[in-house]
Amino acid sequence: MAPDLSEGAAWMKGKVIPISEATLGVTDWALTHSDVAYDVVPVVQGAFFRRDAYLDRFMASMAATRMDVGLTRGDIARALHDMVAASGLRDAYCAMVAARGTPLIPGSRDPRDCGNHFYAWAVPYIHVITPDRVEAGASVWVAQHSRRIPADSVNPRAKNYHWGDFTQGLFEAKDNGFETVVLLDHAGNLTEGPGFNIFLVEGNTVFTPDTGVLEGISRRTALEICAEMGLRTRVEPVPLSRLDTADEVFLTSSGGGILPVTKVGERIYGNGTPGPVAMAARKTYWQWVTQPAYRTEIAYPG
Amino acid sequence: MAPDLSEGAAWMKGKVIPISEATLGVTDWALTHSDVAYDVVPVVQGAFFRRDAYLDRFMASMAATRMDVGLTRGDIARALHDMVAASGLRDAYCAMVAARGTPLIPGSRDPRDCGNHFYAWAVPYIHVITPDRVEAGASVWVAQHSRRIPADSVNPRAKNYHWGDFTQGLFEAKDNGFETVVLLDHAGNLTEGPGFNIFLVEGNTVFTPDTGVLEGISRRTALEICAEMGLRTRVEPVPLSRLDTADEVFLTSSGGGILPVTKVGERIYGNGTPGPVAMAARKTYWQWVTQPAYRTEIAYPG
Repeated sequence: MAPDLSEGAAWMKGKVIPISEATLGVTDWALTHSDVAYDVVPVVQGAFFRRDAYLDRFMASMAATRMDVGLTRGDIARALHDMVAASGLRDAYCAMVAARGTPLIPGSRDPRDCGNHFYAWAVPYIHVITPDRVEAGASVWVAQHSRRIPADSVNPRAKNYHWGDFTQGLFEAKDNGFETVVLLDHAGNLTEGPGFNIFLVEGNTVFTPDTGVLEGISRRTALEICAEMGLRTRVEPVPLSRLDTADEVFLTSSGGGILPVTKVGERIYGNGTPGPVAMAARKTYWQWVTQPAYRTEIAYPG
Repeated sequence: MAPDLSEGAAWMKGKVIPISEATLGVTDWALTHSDVAYDVVPVVQGAFFRRDAYLDRFMASMAATRMDVGLTRGDIARALHDMVAASGLRDAYCAMVAARGTPLIPGSRDPRDCGNHFYAWAVPYIHVITPDRVEAGASVWVAQHSRRIPADSVNPRAKNYHWGDFTQGLFEAKDNGFETVVLLDHAGNLTEGPGFNIFLVEGNTVFTPDTGVLEGISRRTALEICAEMGLRTRVEPVPLSRLDTADEVFLTSSGGGILPVTKVGERIYGNGTPGPVAMAARKTYWQWVTQPAYRTEIAYPG
């Protein structure tokens, strides 16, 4: 009998298994040292969206963290495909993970001695902000007590699980009645939030931070869409004070695309209504998702 | 038949199981957000060493990270005891972990919605530096490309698994032929390394960094031993340049006690021989370990 994959599926050691059975040993350095490179590609309407961009970034993250999982890019692409196909999920959050593993030489504390390994998992699509809140316009808290981990401590471009700064910020946000949080860097510039990049619109120009952030694929898509809309795009340091002069704010995430924001701290945008640039870009994003050039179709069984 | 616990044991959901069967789901925020508070108490010659100090710190780390695992301090103490007793290990590395878990409300991204849980595991004693290297005098690399994660990003006093900065530093150290690594903060002061605090001896005074570091129990023991030896102890910012004027350097860790260092980068101490303060303090450390006042004896079966 085929296993029940309705809650999600995982790919481990060449096998597709139910997500509930996908586990990691408690001594794996992936956990005890948060020593992981990972990525997440969205599955939308039965296809991976911009799969190659996500795979490129995952391969780069593995190289940056010196992970060797013994699989080619093609092997990984096949694993993701076979897992999602078997799951039957047509809209999914599909994670690929390179884990440091444990030392192959007992007692070693040398990360070069570890047996790195790959696994993947897919669950029904995750929204970083629930769709009803997005349509109404989301609220974002600026963390007061937690600064983004600097790039010279942990490289944010190698996608990783170091979320302690985000988690403390999320507690602050939720305690204050906000949906999510954005963190400042140590120079007082905006960086990013848990699972998203941030954009500010001022007149005919959109701004998004250049450094200290993940180079999001959804961020890239949003920059391309904004350019196509005839807006000027500026990727540069964005000081906190720019929030005071911005007309609109939106977030980008593979967990929801382009997400309009109507409130950042005490600042209200568009009288509390999602802005025209964000709403137009959001609409275009969901059109792009259906374009064959960006889609890698999944061959579901049956 | 009793399970084989010779490789180590774990305590999960009230049961003692072999370490090889102790696993965590791949979607647990403990892993995906490195959202964990933990601690490690050493078991030496059949007893926990300074157990109450470790339990105090673990309880404080859980409070700081807002973990509620539904167990009292006494429950946790009992779990650790029963696990180590069942394992038969007389010298062990005994970890206790509070994990964020997963949201009890499906789709929630709110850390307050997660079902926190506790587990523990014990394996044969781990040395942060192998004993033969310690007796010869260990070598420490000062990381060039990786700064310690600042305290206002992730609080180092709440013991956590955010080791990305250490891991990158360890790669540097190992590539350069050193045993381990120490990281600087963003002001250029010494902080700590993967699993240890650092001490410098200059004349009659020992220095150890005050902020941006874990307040190690072994660090506390070393400060107490140094005071007893008639040395002046100064807990304050320690600039990198103090390495140039220091007579001796040593590390402290529950994975080895007091560890003499003979080389830091290109600097050689004591003509490459462990220094007298470090060796005397090391000897005293292993005497203290046998003192009943510091020991919580384990009642092994049979």
